[in-house]
Amino acid sequence: MSNNTTSETKSSNNNTASVTKSYPMNGGDGTYSYMKNSSFQREASIIAKGMIEEVIAKKLDIEKITSASNTFRIADLGCSVGPNTFISMQCVIEAVEQKYIFKGLKSQLPEFQVFFNDIGTNDFNTLFTSLPARRNYFANGVPGSFHGRLFPDSSLHIVHASFALHWLSKVPEEVLDKDSPAWNKGRIYYASASDEVANAYASQFAKDMDNFLNVRAKEIVIGGMMVLVMTATPDGVHRSKTGGGILYDTLGSSLMDMAKVGLVNEAQVDSFNLPVYAASPKEMTELVEKNGNFSIERMQPTDPLLRIDDAIDMQMCTMHIRAAVEEIIRKHFGSEIIDELFDRFYQKAAVYSQMDSSYKKKNLLFLALKRK
Amino acid sequence: MSNNTTSETKSSNNNTASVTKSYPMNGGDGTYSYMKNSSFQREASIIAKGMIEEVIAKKLDIEKITSASNTFRIADLGCSVGPNTFISMQCVIEAVEQKYIFKGLKSQLPEFQVFFNDIGTNDFNTLFTSLPARRNYFANGVPGSFHGRLFPDSSLHIVHASFALHWLSKVPEEVLDKDSPAWNKGRIYYASASDEVANAYASQFAKDMDNFLNVRAKEIVIGGMMVLVMTATPDGVHRSKTGGGILYDTLGSSLMDMAKVGLVNEAQVDSFNLPVYAASPKEMTELVEKNGNFSIERMQPTDPLLRIDDAIDMQMCTMHIRAAVEEIIRKHFGSEIIDELFDRFYQKAAVYSQMDSSYKKKNLLFLALKRK
Repeated sequence: MSNNTTSETKSSNNNTASVTKSYPMNGGDGTYSYMKNSSFQREASIIAKGMIEEVIAKKLDIEKITSASNTFRIADLGCSVGPNTFISMQCVIEAVEQKYIFKGLKSQLPEFQVFFNDIGTNDFNTLFTSLPARRNYFANGVPGSFHGRLFPDSSLHIVHASFALHWLSKVPEEVLDKDSPAWNKGRIYYASASDEVANAYASQFAKDMDNFLNVRAKEIVIGGMMVLVMTATPDGVHRSKTGGGILYDTLGSSLMDMAKVGLVNEAQVDSFNLPVYAASPKEMTELVEKNGNFSIERMQPTDPLLRIDDAIDMQMCTMHIRAAVEEIIRKHFGSEIIDELFDRFYQKAAVYSQMDSSYKKKNLLFLALKRK
Repeated sequence: MSNNTTSETKSSNNNTASVTKSYPMNGGDGTYSYMKNSSFQREASIIAKGMIEEVIAKKLDIEKITSASNTFRIADLGCSVGPNTFISMQCVIEAVEQKYIFKGLKSQLPEFQVFFNDIGTNDFNTLFTSLPARRNYFANGVPGSFHGRLFPDSSLHIVHASFALHWLSKVPEEVLDKDSPAWNKGRIYYASASDEVANAYASQFAKDMDNFLNVRAKEIVIGGMMVLVMTATPDGVHRSKTGGGILYDTLGSSLMDMAKVGLVNEAQVDSFNLPVYAASPKEMTELVEKNGNFSIERMQPTDPLLRIDDAIDMQMCTMHIRAAVEEIIRKHFGSEIIDELFDRFYQKAAVYSQMDSSYKKKNLLFLALKRK
């Protein structure tokens, strides 16, 4: 291995530390599984479908990127267990095939190799046993954090990541430090916290995104594309007025309510923070431009992320939040508080959802980047 | 997708049928897990290590196979859950690195990408969470039967398979047919059965091996190599006198003993056959030569496969057999017979192992092939 490669691989291995701090979506196919509780994300995938088709049709230069090989490699980062990832990958493949056909290159259609990536503790067993029986691609699972290197140099043509990049590599250190002005006492998220806390989160996200763009720049061929679907804070909207902000704040205040009646320890709440950040389109533009490896081909705020129109939807929403964050909460607080916590969360969130619905707008950002 | 590719991918998908008939090694890391009960296979990996190093040093033409890319791709077929597969992959990588260094190409050392393959119901979760933290390769899991296509055209440089190719794609149909002279009544294996039964097994193996060599020939670059470690029947030794033959026959007669006292149904035993075959070096030579896609670079019968020197080793041997075939037996006979069956197997096998040890010789075949 060249020195360069060795240090990269090392850096990938050093990321093991953050991988072990990462938590998978709920595995299996049970009541609280991500598989059964990811219809919001699926809805977003369907919204994204049209945009994916369009950017591939208009922006992808297939002659440029596939000259060296007849294999077209696509990765889905933070894929969880399906079925959404299968829908997204099929969508990408069909859009690429259409492009070949449109260009009169039907006879040169490539073979597709799809890399399903998530952290090593993700339930890959469920992913693999639920792969579509009829598929026109070679399937691979890739364990590891997308904050580190996952693939060889210049080996990918399209990278897709949906509802993944809001996961930080770690909780910003300052928010756990009692002596810092950014100490996040009594909260588990930055949305309704002080600007110091929010800045600590933003700064961690900026570091993570810069690193993410650097490692992907190595892995993606020149002209290759990234299609990102992200939870976002709309430009001009305060962080506490977004869907994610309200929901995670409500989860935090449910924990604090439990602390007040002695069901959890308040110090435990103080020392727990969700490593999640929802950037704004403006922030993402600045970060991508500052990084310099990718051009922005499309940046499209969209909605709805969550259709919280009535109490029934809030029940579904509770199940979704639970599928996503149960594991990280369980590791910090223990299993015994989970049911009580999400009962309380549901009660509080259902009341709120009757009062205001402005927070539902433009919580989703569709972003298409091209490797320069 | 070109017609050619589509039909290949289809054929890969059609193999889903045989995949669903395949059974994984015992997963997890419990008492009866493959992870804890694969030291025989590990011992064989250690024996194979020297031979792998030698064939890579002497036979692999690295300039020829890696000109188009700086990624060196290695697959381990039928990898199970580790740790043996990690040892084998490290061995292959080190041998390739040594070759580069020896050739004065240290500055051109490639990045390594390793593909861990096994059927989709294999415990990939355990495999992924036990990956070596310090590794100098990008790790991938590939779910699917090695009897079908798994990788894009010309995408692999070295394929390794240890204790995998003895698994047939299916039980030969004739041995389940009451009207056939090859009906295997009262047995679960061909070793001590009639020649008709043995021929049916041999014929299925020949078909599977020809297909295996054809699909791998598509996936491996010209000049790329396959390193196979197989359970084998030594040339000139009757099939009933090999380690595997004796052990599986003993398992079958343990089942028949249970049938006699009503613990299982005799018809159930008649309808169960292990889809496993141990070819001889002579057979393998003929099959590879007839197929024509690969040259034989080395064919080395070796031993010991099983070091069954005393009762303690037979206990270990029982655990090993159990880790390998428990799942397929469970699916046919149900969970409740498992403990009793392996208790009986252990008693019978322990007595036999005191009587004779000639069957321990040359039960292992090391084979290195090069893609023409």
